[in-house]
Amino acid sequence: MTRLLKNGMIVNVFTNSLEKKNVLMSTEGMILGVGNYDTADEIIDVSNKILCPGFIDGHIHIESTTLMPHELAKVCLPCGTVAIVADPHEICNVCGLDGLAFILSSSEGLPMTTYIMLPSCVPATKFDESGAKLTAKDLKYFYSHSRVLGLAEMMNYPGVINDDLEVMEKINDAKKMNKIINGHAPLLTGEALDKYIVAGITDDHECSSELEAKERIQKGQWVMIREGTSARNLEGLISLFDEPYCQRCLLVTDDKHPHDILMNGHIDNIIRKAVSLGKSAITGIRMASLQAAQCFGLKNVGAIAPGYKANILVLNDLNTIDINDVYVNGNLVVENKRVIDFEIPNVRPEILKNIYRTFYMDDLKEDDFYIEDKHTDCRVIEIIKDQLLSNELICRLNFNKNNGIDIEKDILKIAVCERHLYTNHKGVGYIKGIGLKSGAIASSVSHDSHNLVIIGTNNKDMAIAGNAIKKMGGGLCVVENGDVLAQMALPLAGLMTTKSAKEISNENENVRNSARKIGSNYDIEPFMLMAFMGLAVIPHLKITTLGLVDVDKQEIVPLFLENK
Amino acid sequence: MTRLLKNGMIVNVFTNSLEKKNVLMSTEGMILGVGNYDTADEIIDVSNKILCPGFIDGHIHIESTTLMPHELAKVCLPCGTVAIVADPHEICNVCGLDGLAFILSSSEGLPMTTYIMLPSCVPATKFDESGAKLTAKDLKYFYSHSRVLGLAEMMNYPGVINDDLEVMEKINDAKKMNKIINGHAPLLTGEALDKYIVAGITDDHECSSELEAKERIQKGQWVMIREGTSARNLEGLISLFDEPYCQRCLLVTDDKHPHDILMNGHIDNIIRKAVSLGKSAITGIRMASLQAAQCFGLKNVGAIAPGYKANILVLNDLNTIDINDVYVNGNLVVENKRVIDFEIPNVRPEILKNIYRTFYMDDLKEDDFYIEDKHTDCRVIEIIKDQLLSNELICRLNFNKNNGIDIEKDILKIAVCERHLYTNHKGVGYIKGIGLKSGAIASSVSHDSHNLVIIGTNNKDMAIAGNAIKKMGGGLCVVENGDVLAQMALPLAGLMTTKSAKEISNENENVRNSARKIGSNYDIEPFMLMAFMGLAVIPHLKITTLGLVDVDKQEIVPLFLENK
Repeated sequence: MTRLLKNGMIVNVFTNSLEKKNVLMSTEGMILGVGNYDTADEIIDVSNKILCPGFIDGHIHIESTTLMPHELAKVCLPCGTVAIVADPHEICNVCGLDGLAFILSSSEGLPMTTYIMLPSCVPATKFDESGAKLTAKDLKYFYSHSRVLGLAEMMNYPGVINDDLEVMEKINDAKKMNKIINGHAPLLTGEALDKYIVAGITDDHECSSELEAKERIQKGQWVMIREGTSARNLEGLISLFDEPYCQRCLLVTDDKHPHDILMNGHIDNIIRKAVSLGKSAITGIRMASLQAAQCFGLKNVGAIAPGYKANILVLNDLNTIDINDVYVNGNLVVENKRVIDFEIPNVRPEILKNIYRTFYMDDLKEDDFYIEDKHTDCRVIEIIKDQLLSNELICRLNFNKNNGIDIEKDILKIAVCERHLYTNHKGVGYIKGIGLKSGAIASSVSHDSHNLVIIGTNNKDMAIAGNAIKKMGGGLCVVENGDVLAQMALPLAGLMTTKSAKEISNENENVRNSARKIGSNYDIEPFMLMAFMGLAVIPHLKITTLGLVDVDKQEIVPLFLENK
Repeated sequence: MTRLLKNGMIVNVFTNSLEKKNVLMSTEGMILGVGNYDTADEIIDVSNKILCPGFIDGHIHIESTTLMPHELAKVCLPCGTVAIVADPHEICNVCGLDGLAFILSSSEGLPMTTYIMLPSCVPATKFDESGAKLTAKDLKYFYSHSRVLGLAEMMNYPGVINDDLEVMEKINDAKKMNKIINGHAPLLTGEALDKYIVAGITDDHECSSELEAKERIQKGQWVMIREGTSARNLEGLISLFDEPYCQRCLLVTDDKHPHDILMNGHIDNIIRKAVSLGKSAITGIRMASLQAAQCFGLKNVGAIAPGYKANILVLNDLNTIDINDVYVNGNLVVENKRVIDFEIPNVRPEILKNIYRTFYMDDLKEDDFYIEDKHTDCRVIEIIKDQLLSNELICRLNFNKNNGIDIEKDILKIAVCERHLYTNHKGVGYIKGIGLKSGAIASSVSHDSHNLVIIGTNNKDMAIAGNAIKKMGGGLCVVENGDVLAQMALPLAGLMTTKSAKEISNENENVRNSARKIGSNYDIEPFMLMAFMGLAVIPHLKITTLGLVDVDKQEIVPLFLENK
């Protein structure tokens, strides 16, 4: 059957212009023609509307949204996102290949096409006790999956530059299969960057300055302009919307929270922002469609032209990217800003059971968090406002009461508890800057190995909070005086929920409010901060299940300094 | 080993700019870095020079140059052409898969990479008695050859538009193998063009007007701006060098004679001409390098950037594209404008013997060209100056002497003799506009089936000319009063020679001068015209081994009109 969109203005991403043309498409998925067509099985008048190709998010972690792929599709499709390129790095750190199988099958056949990049760095560091290790051999066979486009962000750039065997095997496998290898190398420059690119890394989404981005474009990489919930690079990179640089950029969100998508939008929001900063909407649309497809080698995707996939957005207004309807494969999937119901992919129970069961640890006891005083100076993680960086603070703690915790001075306890392999390893230390006055907070979202992380004002509430998370099979919670004040379950790998974006946003707001009640600063997002205190690639002092890590030296350090 | 090109200015095709940078490359073939490098195993100072990526000719028929691939490489490399995409359509019409095997093996390992597109239309028309028929099944297995990029120019656009089974099978095989399908659809527009593109045709090189080309770009095709020896479209398409259209164009020669390459150059000449017409040399370079690679999906080719193939031209001057040295895969192949000797590929004798033996026909006799007078009006092919089009002229011929030939009125005889399969079929008719006053000319170059074509002032000289060609195993010759005045052998399939460009150019000049001696106009190139009089796709009246063809009606028509 054929369908004709008649009398609209078309955004032509090949010529950067608007054309008054009719679009004929087949309901089997392809654009059949663009011109003066006037007959079809179904004719839809789109007078006064703008038609543009659907958007592609070139780099996103589905797990960061906490949503199942179909729930994510429900909120992204009205934003014009018809495809995402997802790196299931988080869930693979928890569940290994089961995580990959889960994301692949739970996104199968969605109206928002979910392309997958194979996680390149599981575990992320040698300090990570993750739930799985993915070797080159593990990944290799997945390249033949039709939705697998390549190897995901290669964060281990020292491994690339120093020809680490395992890293190079992963890269070479992807290259042999003619696949893309995404980059992740913030601030890498000059000869080191050249070596990284020579290895076969095609792009980067970590650029924060014009200078950094332009060097990459000069050297042939694609630059993914990232504007996520936390990491926001659009303003710093806005000059890339000018010629000729714009020709080598695409738009990505990386990590995006459901509340943010509901409130502000997705890729559409990045284009809107660029327009508000004086740039051309058509340039943004081109980045988000044709160029994203080109970066990933997707043929016949990203334009309104004969032979292209009939993924078309119907806009009420170009500059505000006011999306009224969305066609995917020639069929309406969003009508009048509302998603049309679609079939939810089926995930086989043998995969699902492993995704739902990811806590392999003993119940926590108050004593687990007890620290014996060594009567010397102690290393304390000090958080820095608005950053994921942390300082190493050296101070003498008062062990006369509350096992070194000093609420007055905002020195609280932090613990990271291994939950994947029954090692029951725990790293316990101190953190300054969170602001809790009572109780404890805990979470199973803790990059990148997603062990159980707890921050508290006393050992007892910490144990209760940790056990509450374990009982839910993952999530966030707030405990005070032995009672759970609020909790939000993330039972899928401890990272995701089956709830809708709206439901989970509300629950998240509730948990955050409870955390504020027990003293967390309004300035900081304690759960987000907490999620990065275990990531031993961000300087300077972090904590994993193995203890404190001096990130700069890349070594485990003791909590207490030795007596000199 | 590493090699450093130091102190040059680099043409950056990602940013359309010149950068003062050093280029480090490996002699194994890759660019390792672009920046402030200053050490390497070998350092070459390129102060005051411009470095740009090597050029790619996106569409060429090697057979039209008459040269072996290695001889073609010798003349193209100094012009900066480091790769060609060849359609061996002509030789496959003569030799079938042997022709393909010959071109593949005779171009293996050349410093000028010879990519191959599989001929899509052998034979070209139903009126062609060619030496072979290439079916989809014949072509299929060649897609796995590393230098085969796809299916060559799909000239049979009616077949595409009408879903001809065999045509669609060829197209679908190419698509399944993720290969490119080149287009050839002059003047196709609107809905018919849409259908052609929807089938999967990615480009066209037959555009002669801005309007025609821009429609294709709007619809997502690449436009190959062709400037060959005969078909010259650059001037008509010069506005495509402006943004944004230039981003979707590449440069090709299609058919180029060796004398023209020696005198004027190759792809470099197209850029030079564009500059003389006021356009940017960098735009031309970008079309001829990065964009040609993008059109064909060639990764890491066409730019001076880390990880790209080290195919670099060292220019004395940008705007005249004055090429001093050429590096291919990091090694010098042209030094100071002179090609460095390279190894000539070996062709196995069992392939070669079939290429050398392509005349399967009886000797010609004077009587073979005798036409019996039917005493009615006769159809005569009338050539049109400067065009390959021909008119149908209806006139009563005088059969009282010379069997209808009338030298005064410039009505000569033309014959096309089947030479592939011993059918001894002959089409004999009359032609006006060649101008011979005595003798005959003959050639085995006759598109697309390359049967033996002869034009003469008398039957005897025609037979002698034809037999001379047969004796050489192909070529061109001029006969007068029973003597061969000049001849040029093309013993490889009747199309090509093992001689150098210079030698064959001199021979060709000699043959042409002889043709002029017996009366051919200085205004026309009789052998070139003759080569197209058998091509039943160019209106209006043509002749094949089966007789006269009314191209517009696509049917065989009798020489004499029936009495009414």
